[in-house]
Amino acid sequence: MANVYDTANQLEREIRELDQFKALGDSFGKLKESEEAYGLFKEFQSFQQNLQQRMAAGEEMTDEDASKAQTLAERIQKEPLISDLMEKEQSFSLVVNDLNRIIMEPLRELYEG
Amino acid sequence: MANVYDTANQLEREIRELDQFKALGDSFGKLKESEEAYGLFKEFQSFQQNLQQRMAAGEEMTDEDASKAQTLAERIQKEPLISDLMEKEQSFSLVVNDLNRIIMEPLRELYEG
Repeated sequence: MANVYDTANQLEREIRELDQFKALGDSFGKLKESEEAYGLFKEFQSFQQNLQQRMAAGEEMTDEDASKAQTLAERIQKEPLISDLMEKEQSFSLVVNDLNRIIMEPLRELYEG
Repeated sequence: MANVYDTANQLEREIRELDQFKALGDSFGKLKESEEAYGLFKEFQSFQQNLQQRMAAGEEMTDEDASKAQTLAERIQKEPLISDLMEKEQSFSLVVNDLNRIIMEPLRELYEG
């Protein structure tokens, strides 16, 4: 029987070959080439991370946060390079979620069975 | 090249054969045989789920929650069947975390590279 780690490494290599992963890489590569769009992407990312950390620490979302989130969302919607990345992320995450569901089936069965 | 879903299914079968997974299943089986210990386990589980849901919805932890959490923790520490399950869960989760880290490496590289 193959070792679980060998199999996980095989899966890792196969994920790299997936169309959905390649499309994501291509999209991210194109985004990074645009200074303006990439800057906006980084700004959105750090805003989101900061907000998530503060919410996890029990802070409430302020009016200022809400207004900044809306402004950023509007700017992002006008940026095709970012919309494209988000679309590709979503397609890729559908596969990853399926894979996780398959791999975690033994645990689900154990506790529900 | 094998299909990612075939490989995920292979990994799923191998996970079932892992010592850490079998030990977890044995431990959970023994716990379920004890009405008292299993009742306490279910009580702890539903308390935790309820608390997590309320925290996710932005509620704060009350003094009553904290006191109930402490009482449950004390009762659980005295229940060897539950301590054993938690120990086995931890060993199994170390493997699962490793597997997830391996499988998610392409995505980490893409965004950090």
